Amino acid sequence: MELRPEDLDVQRLGACRIQSPISGAHFVADGDRVVLHSNPAKLQSMLEKDGKLLALEKAGPREKIYFDPSKLKCGIVTCGGICPGLNDVIRAVVLSLYHNYRVKTVFGFPYGYEGLTYRFGHTPVELNPAAVSRIHEYGGTILGSSRGNQDISEMVDTMDRMNLGLLFAVGGDGTLRGAQAIAEEIQRRGLKISVIGIPKTIDNDISYVERSFGFETAVSEAVESIDAAHTEAKGARNGIGLVKLMGRESGFIAVFASLARSDVNICLIPEVPFSMEKLLENVRARLQSRGHAVIVVAEGAGQDLLGDTHERDASGNVKFKDIGLFLKDRINAYFKGAGVDATLKYIDPSYTIRSVPANAYDSAFCLLLGQSAVHAGMAGRTNLVVGYWMNTFTHVPIPLAVSARKKVDPDGWVWSSVLTSTGQPRDMR
Amino acid sequence: MELRPEDLDVQRLGACRIQSPISGAHFVADGDRVVLHSNPAKLQSMLEKDGKLLALEKAGPREKIYFDPSKLKCGIVTCGGICPGLNDVIRAVVLSLYHNYRVKTVFGFPYGYEGLTYRFGHTPVELNPAAVSRIHEYGGTILGSSRGNQDISEMVDTMDRMNLGLLFAVGGDGTLRGAQAIAEEIQRRGLKISVIGIPKTIDNDISYVERSFGFETAVSEAVESIDAAHTEAKGARNGIGLVKLMGRESGFIAVFASLARSDVNICLIPEVPFSMEKLLENVRARLQSRGHAVIVVAEGAGQDLLGDTHERDASGNVKFKDIGLFLKDRINAYFKGAGVDATLKYIDPSYTIRSVPANAYDSAFCLLLGQSAVHAGMAGRTNLVVGYWMNTFTHVPIPLAVSARKKVDPDGWVWSSVLTSTGQPRDMR
Amino acid sequence: MELRPEDLDVQRLGACRIQSPISGAHFVADGDRVVLHSNPAKLQSMLEKDGKLLALEKAGPREKIYFDPSKLKCGIVTCGGICPGLNDVIRAVVLSLYHNYRVKTVFGFPYGYEGLTYRFGHTPVELNPAAVSRIHEYGGTILGSSRGNQDISEMVDTMDRMNLGLLFAVGGDGTLRGAQAIAEEIQRRGLKISVIGIPKTIDNDISYVERSFGFETAVSEAVESIDAAHTEAKGARNGIGLVKLMGRESGFIAVFASLARSDVNICLIPEVPFSMEKLLENVRARLQSRGHAVIVVAEGAGQDLLGDTHERDASGNVKFKDIGLFLKDRINAYFKGAGVDATLKYIDPSYTIRSVPANAYDSAFCLLLGQSAVHAGMAGRTNLVVGYWMNTFTHVPIPLAVSARKKVDPDGWVWSSVLTSTGQPRDMR
Amino acid sequence: MELRPEDLDVQRLGACRIQSPISGAHFVADGDRVVLHSNPAKLQSMLEKDGKLLALEKAGPREKIYFDPSKLKCGIVTCGGICPGLNDVIRAVVLSLYHNYRVKTVFGFPYGYEGLTYRFGHTPVELNPAAVSRIHEYGGTILGSSRGNQDISEMVDTMDRMNLGLLFAVGGDGTLRGAQAIAEEIQRRGLKISVIGIPKTIDNDISYVERSFGFETAVSEAVESIDAAHTEAKGARNGIGLVKLMGRESGFIAVFASLARSDVNICLIPEVPFSMEKLLENVRARLQSRGHAVIVVAEGAGQDLLGDTHERDASGNVKFKDIGLFLKDRINAYFKGAGVDATLKYIDPSYTIRSVPANAYDSAFCLLLGQSAVHAGMAGRTNLVVGYWMNTFTHVPIPLAVSARKKVDPDGWVWSSVLTSTGQPRDMR
Repeated sequence: MELRPEDLDVQRLGACRIQSPISGAHFVADGDRVVLHSNPAKLQSMLEKDGKLLALEKAGPREKIYFDPSKLKCGIVTCGGICPGLNDVIRAVVLSLYHNYRVKTVFGFPYGYEGLTYRFGHTPVELNPAAVSRIHEYGGTILGSSRGNQDISEMVDTMDRMNLGLLFAVGGDGTLRGAQAIAEEIQRRGLKISVIGIPKTIDNDISYVERSFGFETAVSEAVESIDAAHTEAKGARNGIGLVKLMGRESGFIAVFASLARSDVNICLIPEVPFSMEKLLENVRARLQSRGHAVIVVAEGAGQDLLGDTHERDASGNVKFKDIGLFLKDRINAYFKGAGVDATLKYIDPSYTIRSVPANAYDSAFCLLLGQSAVHAGMAGRTNLVVGYWMNTFTHVPIPLAVSARKKVDPDGWVWSSVLTSTGQPRDMR
Repeated sequence: MELRPEDLDVQRLGACRIQSPISGAHFVADGDRVVLHSNPAKLQSMLEKDGKLLALEKAGPREKIYFDPSKLKCGIVTCGGICPGLNDVIRAVVLSLYHNYRVKTVFGFPYGYEGLTYRFGHTPVELNPAAVSRIHEYGGTILGSSRGNQDISEMVDTMDRMNLGLLFAVGGDGTLRGAQAIAEEIQRRGLKISVIGIPKTIDNDISYVERSFGFETAVSEAVESIDAAHTEAKGARNGIGLVKLMGRESGFIAVFASLARSDVNICLIPEVPFSMEKLLENVRARLQSRGHAVIVVAEGAGQDLLGDTHERDASGNVKFKDIGLFLKDRINAYFKGAGVDATLKYIDPSYTIRSVPANAYDSAFCLLLGQSAVHAGMAGRTNLVVGYWMNTFTHVPIPLAVSARKKVDPDGWVWSSVLTSTGQPRDMR
Repeated sequence: MELRPEDLDVQRLGACRIQSPISGAHFVADGDRVVLHSNPAKLQSMLEKDGKLLALEKAGPREKIYFDPSKLKCGIVTCGGICPGLNDVIRAVVLSLYHNYRVKTVFGFPYGYEGLTYRFGHTPVELNPAAVSRIHEYGGTILGSSRGNQDISEMVDTMDRMNLGLLFAVGGDGTLRGAQAIAEEIQRRGLKISVIGIPKTIDNDISYVERSFGFETAVSEAVESIDAAHTEAKGARNGIGLVKLMGRESGFIAVFASLARSDVNICLIPEVPFSMEKLLENVRARLQSRGHAVIVVAEGAGQDLLGDTHERDASGNVKFKDIGLFLKDRINAYFKGAGVDATLKYIDPSYTIRSVPANAYDSAFCLLLGQSAVHAGMAGRTNLVVGYWMNTFTHVPIPLAVSARKKVDPDGWVWSSVLTSTGQPRDMR
Repeated sequence: MELRPEDLDVQRLGACRIQSPISGAHFVADGDRVVLHSNPAKLQSMLEKDGKLLALEKAGPREKIYFDPSKLKCGIVTCGGICPGLNDVIRAVVLSLYHNYRVKTVFGFPYGYEGLTYRFGHTPVELNPAAVSRIHEYGGTILGSSRGNQDISEMVDTMDRMNLGLLFAVGGDGTLRGAQAIAEEIQRRGLKISVIGIPKTIDNDISYVERSFGFETAVSEAVESIDAAHTEAKGARNGIGLVKLMGRESGFIAVFASLARSDVNICLIPEVPFSMEKLLENVRARLQSRGHAVIVVAEGAGQDLLGDTHERDASGNVKFKDIGLFLKDRINAYFKGAGVDATLKYIDPSYTIRSVPANAYDSAFCLLLGQSAVHAGMAGRTNLVVGYWMNTFTHVPIPLAVSARKKVDPDGWVWSSVLTSTGQPRDMR
């Protein structure tokens, strides 16, 4: 579907009339935007055709804001699987509300959207600088999390009853759809509550967001499993190291981990189909020529080989069959059948990848992301996520962000670089 | 079985008549020993009864050595599963032979005992200081490894044919039994080849050896999985983190990891039986009182709950059924049955624990262990392992070292400290 | 100075007529470019004025290449201070030349430009996949490095005599100016040798290059010193932690480290002047209100306070006086004078920040950068550096890259975010 | 001075008549001891002469305790420089008092002995399991620290007034002397307050204590500086890496770091004198033969070369002149004078070594040490430190522990192993 410039416009609660309390800031002007594309030819033809470029609104502090900080009550909620940097984000939001805007009431809702729903009986936690001062040193989320959406109406009731003006929802695809539904219900009721999404996806698969927090940290952790697999593979005659990494629908973690460790000989991702025959052939050839092999597989890869499944988890995500164990069994059987004395070591780092604290760069990124979310909310923006595009923090309408998953482009330069690095054939079907 | 002082005596190839080339060293005197027990009352009664104390020979450089360094050829072999520090040990042996004794010929045999056996066709690698200079920065073993013993006679043939005087065998229980058989065959043939074992057991379960290399590093790695499990457990309502750690017959890794992270609420080891009923009861009580629970289980724990098995791997070790997956299923089923909405996250760090390079302390330990092995071999000792006892490097006859596995004493202070720390009941049967 | 579109054009040795041996690659088309700016309004007015946008040539493999791989000899040289990722870059260049283009002769020149100069007597090292297979696990550079340029004519003589077609020069500002001079001398002589620069600057201060390799790793390391300073500061009454970080003319490391650790209360960089009076006032206020303070200072900050200096090092860089020790003394004296019992701990991590191996993300980045450099060279480009801009690897003419240093913009959003995070006043003069 | 068996006897407040609330524990019997020596010949002759062995009392839980837990108030204080594991120790003491003995009142005194002294106006902090639950994840001490002793009488007044029964003093030599003075004043006044020392010495230099907490972690950190120095040294022609490590009077950190990284070519410690001439000669020889050199120097080494000093810090420790900067200047001057183009990089990791959290093994050790301290105090022992000897936690009378500093024995096997590893001559005077 062709994007139109207006698809990138951000929803606002109303006009900004209050002077920002941030002194000496360099404010973002209202029309500041960043283009969606960097190809000059494309830009030129776009201008010739429409007289306008596709561009995202820049994030950052505005000179005039929508909410009166002295009266504002805010809430924050973390949903879905944990991800490095969640506590950094919570902390950044709280510190920015307190120190930049002098907002004094921030509630953390426990266990995701459950915390906004009566029947679970969770009590919101008051968050302030003292409460969050060292939380970035921990993995996970101090608020707890849960999967699945709750009753939209009930959640809006809670916010209305608590007199919240601003809700920060940190979560993935499902959470953001929930946030959109909440924002729409708020609009329907004529309430003045802003809903700001902070995209959390360890798989880095949200559209129009170049980079998501925690992704780098996850790649670093993934690399340790690859190192282990490589060491095991080299330690045995015909040693094979097989590592399963996160990546349900997008293989970014597998891809970047393979680029970071060119010891990987075969990288399998959901975006690029393969057949068992070709895979086994390649592993065998590799063992013959080099004596060992390292294979990385994203959890969503090769699902067509596993037979169909229709199970879904509480978030509505399709439940994946385990490609790692499947490959382990098939490769072992193949070499046994072929009379080759191969030793396969299977590593599934699972939750260890996502439960660590953010690394330095992700920490800085979370700080900036959290600040951007606060600026967006204070300026009365709503139904958006804060994103990052062309080195700039941006506002992305939620409908746009959840319109499709970002995927590794099998024809793009990143995947080409993976092939260049692993030496695997482009076509393994 | 009661030990007699002579059980601790070490076998020698012959008298030491050659002056050690180590200048300015502080040599260990021939009778230097270290007592086996530290309890003064026990020592006193022992002396009164036998007029003698049980004591191990001290390791270290001797002023007079057995082998003529200028003519000596040495070999080194690494067997069984990999373990942090293997490359440190190889490096220490090579550097000590070269720099301390000026031995110039050291062969590394590839892939464990296979490398000493004709039919595998592996070619020995010449090792020298340049070849090993940075290998300690890698996990695994540069020589490769394999499980299982090979034909003893054939291996002695190889050594004889290559004119080896000294073989270092780095490995666990099975490897050391193999080394003993080799030493006995050497003796039968009247050859003058010394066989020095360097005990490798990530489980720290070799008798009369207080501490084995790589153990600390393994504990550090294990702790990261516990941290992940704790983070996951705290991130969900009724969150349970379950971590399976190495420890087939001895639970030392689980024990020390639980002491290092007192976030562990239940620690299960092979030495201490438990019933599912009591375990489930305890987990439930913990969830009720604290909302989350962290469980650590050693792979050899609770095998009686899994039904009998007689499978063995190539090293002759009993193949264990997977207690981790078993517990995961049983705990999930239990809470489902009880209508409790619990979230269990299972972490099996598997090979990532053993494939990392040694940490600083293990590195230093490996250096000293390797040096000790070289000193022992140069002094014509044979059929022994180098050990560590009462802060001293020692010589332990192989038959003694493999007489029984070292186990966590369920009545000792270490296990008591674990109970103190986790708060779990002493009896969970 | 206003940039013109032609300032971004890249120099070529000649037409590309040889088919690339890379099979199945997705080649970059010849005109592919990426715009220099992302502001739609600016782009629009540029087009209206010039009919053209400022844009950089994209890096990547070309379908037709300039050099015949079977006859090509290449060289690589690393200059200046070490930086995380140097070995990754060397490795990526060698692997890409071998595996992608089947170039079989690659020389490493020892100790920077010295290695290209007769009188030092260094012997070039032959590099191949085996020689570089694990070098990315080490910090530093396997080739060694040196500061300072050497005689240009003599270096071109060496290349000519060795029949080199392609030189990769990894280094900073000074190195790149040297590479430019080499490329110009090559052109003067009518030789067909391509010179490709790979920008190395731990300070991340090269123009038109968004991100330089090793920078992230350096920030991670810097953060550890900040953590130490914070711990020390909190451990004492009126504790002050003072950390000096790299950053001679640009404060990027200090800036990103401060964003990664919002424990920093004052961040001082070369781009933003300050007075001792204001600084001391701020530290005092912070101690009074919070009991401790953490200060980060880039080495090039506050040089005006130290008196003038005209010393230069072998690379021609101005030798900086030590602002860290200066601040330490002045702050100590101030509180002593004021009768305040303050405890200042000074940390200068110095070389520990730059000597570590690259982290996972930098490793992946180095791989892509090295591949891009090889593609550029094989396509006959010369006198350029490979850069990164708008998420794309690019070709940047060396004269453009060295035209000015990239600096932290005191009026930009990054510095604003630092102020937001530290709480320090915008103006401390 | 010859030790007599009674010098090892531990002081008690009175008889233990209360049943320990620890259920199912394996209690330490009253006479349980561990011998001071492990040499069988020495033990035998000792028995023959005195009829008794030198032995330390074992630490651990007693079946009968002295204090009534329901009425007991405890205090804890951390003094002197920070050290990895301080928070682990605080946490272990609090958790053991709460969970094992059900003591409900534990005060943390801020900033060392200052916290026990009126005039500083510090308020004691109530510590409980919630307050300490995650503090082991931080470096430093949550209580803060200070150097120097305070008025003994005033401190005892505070304890008396607060009705404290048990004080845990974590600190080094000076702190322990203070604790002894406090215990003596308590005895003089006829109070029933137990004073238990927990020896904190990053230098590992307390007598009759084999191992002190934080030492291993410090060695690990030190090794990172050595790695940096080695990388720098190898990266330059005639590169020299010089690292200064902690170790005022004892060189244990330098020694173990050098064993952990056999890249060290010269290790200088306070216990082994050297002359500049011999040192410079050795560095030069090393550069000639290998092209680079790595030197590690403990801060207390070579003080005789620096001229005399009588300055002392607030703890009464002699202020050391900076041997690191001295060597840096002298080595640079020497090679300049000799016309050798050498590049020396100096690294002083300073506080970064001591401010990190404890590693896994130190964490476990701190837990056991803290538990041991609590058991000792509850059993009415006083004027002792908890130590570790022959793999057993022990009670060491403070006067014995502070009688002399533990030093590296220049004639022992550890230093011999260092020489073996570095290759430096035994005599460098």
